[in-house]
Amino acid sequence: MNIGELDTPSVLVDLDVMERNLDRMSAYCASAGVALRPHIKTHKIPELARKQIARGAVGITAAKPSEAAVMAAGGLDDIFIAYPIVARQKAEALLALSETTRISVSVDSLEAAECLARAAAARSYRLPILVEIDVGFGRCGAQSAEAAVRLAAAIERLAGARFGGLMFYPGHMMVPVQQQNELLPVVNAKVEAAYSALVAAGLPVEVVSGGSTPMATRSAEFSHLTEIRPGMYPLNDRNLVCGGFATLADCAVTVLTTVVSNAVPERVILDGGSKTFSSDRLLTGDHLGHGAVLEDADALFYGLSEEHGHIDTSGSGHTYRLGDRLRIVPNHVCATINMHDAVYGVRGDQVEVVWQVAARGRVQ
Amino acid sequence: MNIGELDTPSVLVDLDVMERNLDRMSAYCASAGVALRPHIKTHKIPELARKQIARGAVGITAAKPSEAAVMAAGGLDDIFIAYPIVARQKAEALLALSETTRISVSVDSLEAAECLARAAAARSYRLPILVEIDVGFGRCGAQSAEAAVRLAAAIERLAGARFGGLMFYPGHMMVPVQQQNELLPVVNAKVEAAYSALVAAGLPVEVVSGGSTPMATRSAEFSHLTEIRPGMYPLNDRNLVCGGFATLADCAVTVLTTVVSNAVPERVILDGGSKTFSSDRLLTGDHLGHGAVLEDADALFYGLSEEHGHIDTSGSGHTYRLGDRLRIVPNHVCATINMHDAVYGVRGDQVEVVWQVAARGRVQ
Repeated sequence: MNIGELDTPSVLVDLDVMERNLDRMSAYCASAGVALRPHIKTHKIPELARKQIARGAVGITAAKPSEAAVMAAGGLDDIFIAYPIVARQKAEALLALSETTRISVSVDSLEAAECLARAAAARSYRLPILVEIDVGFGRCGAQSAEAAVRLAAAIERLAGARFGGLMFYPGHMMVPVQQQNELLPVVNAKVEAAYSALVAAGLPVEVVSGGSTPMATRSAEFSHLTEIRPGMYPLNDRNLVCGGFATLADCAVTVLTTVVSNAVPERVILDGGSKTFSSDRLLTGDHLGHGAVLEDADALFYGLSEEHGHIDTSGSGHTYRLGDRLRIVPNHVCATINMHDAVYGVRGDQVEVVWQVAARGRVQ
Repeated sequence: MNIGELDTPSVLVDLDVMERNLDRMSAYCASAGVALRPHIKTHKIPELARKQIARGAVGITAAKPSEAAVMAAGGLDDIFIAYPIVARQKAEALLALSETTRISVSVDSLEAAECLARAAAARSYRLPILVEIDVGFGRCGAQSAEAAVRLAAAIERLAGARFGGLMFYPGHMMVPVQQQNELLPVVNAKVEAAYSALVAAGLPVEVVSGGSTPMATRSAEFSHLTEIRPGMYPLNDRNLVCGGFATLADCAVTVLTTVVSNAVPERVILDGGSKTFSSDRLLTGDHLGHGAVLEDADALFYGLSEEHGHIDTSGSGHTYRLGDRLRIVPNHVCATINMHDAVYGVRGDQVEVVWQVAARGRVQ
């Protein structure tokens, strides 16, 4: 099928671009000596996760037991949950997967560790539990090396669990390189302190799991890092472009839209709004706009209604006719794909594959 | 089932509150002499749309043919599409529903009218096409009374179509009452001008369709209004509360969440972020925060990751323990429900019904 036959709005994945991105990250991780455990939150598609494994990823990362269940059913057999689980229902749902799948988790509280260990012990599973440390993002994670050691030692004492290593998320590092350079020693000092204290306490640190797409290719500069969990690298988006982490040519995902109104002077309306793109704002660069219009670099995607995309064409020489189709690089690819039940894998102008976003809507 | 048995995050609909909201709007419309044609974008649930019809709504409004198809399959037999359709594929999908369902549409271009009329004529259907006028929101709509008359006259000449009336969306009126009072005469002047010009041109205006939830209860002050299309009124949300259009007690939807981390001082993390609530920002009041925590009015829901809700508890005396459950009124109920495959209708602490959000994901 030709792209022209697709109804709009539709999410397209350029397979050539995606495969190049996958190859590039696999090559980097091999050269840097870090394992790759991609976060599937970005795409939620088992077929795409299997492509990541086929290119050398050691396993995947997910946030929710319900997502993990979809991935396990899709043949993924090594799943790390990078999210604190404190409820029995969730722990039991997750450990039910351990019959077919290697499961590991991270926690930042003894309560979470106990909850997970109980569910593991009931299945005679010895669950690797990593300790999350806060390296400056201020979201989750033990606040000191001492707290990390206390938690790791407590995990080692739980039936059904073992201390699996350290985990952190440098969510505050999606910033210009100069600021990254200032943050990196702070992050490394925190990792180093926890690592050393654990080793000194007789708790060897098997895994140090960090990373994100913006920091992935600086992995070699992080202390003790053994694996990274980037999500966006196969697809990329406007946040990464405007932050200097990718180019538009690296963005595999575009949203195919149609011009549906040009009644208002110097404006055109596209048939995709916040329920197509999400309303996630640009986190980098000038923080303006809701997507990049590939056909017209001078168009400003300035507003979103639920089903309308508002484009300001006052600075553009482009002529827009009703029915014209435009391809838009979204601000945040994870949020955009999460709006859709299916995406279209394309090569050139041909649709090669339709992927169901099978783990979408698995919020629990 | 008790609410306590639900996994989190889950979207709850308080049925007592919803039924009171439904009754109140039906009573208002009856007293004001305007027909009620609710927009189903807010809930996307056929069962809820049928409750609106059972309480006197004359039909429903939808944005997309794919949504309309779900609603038609769910027994809704009078559907207005308040969205410009310019593609043959969409027009044919919509008119296919005309075998069982009264279909009407609005347009702001001759191209859209022609596209829809062709699909209607092929089915020997005479499609009521309303002309959208721009009353100041600047999104879609004819820009002058003359443009509206030209379009209406052209519609009357199309086989398969007839001029069905005027449609407008006062999307710019979700503002404090004083600003509304300044905007209302401008809106009325635009409606009046188009209405008079149409009548003078021998084109009687059968329907004047306007309205939105914030303006619904001022319908009697709009010139020539015959029907309104509010979406949010059965459920309400924090935007409406902070704008002074509803109270927290009028909000039927809450998101049930769990505290999953309290490792960072003066912060707690909930198990719902932008993929649970959406990242739609507060459009009214102080424009701050991502939801109202019902259990703690002093908690500030200041940040969203994809699966984490970030709560600042520094101004609060409330004690948060891991595993605590909190109910949050979302900023934008339409966007929140759109994130979920199902919602739970509750009465008190009992789950009475599970509704599939059947028209969710019908982006085309």
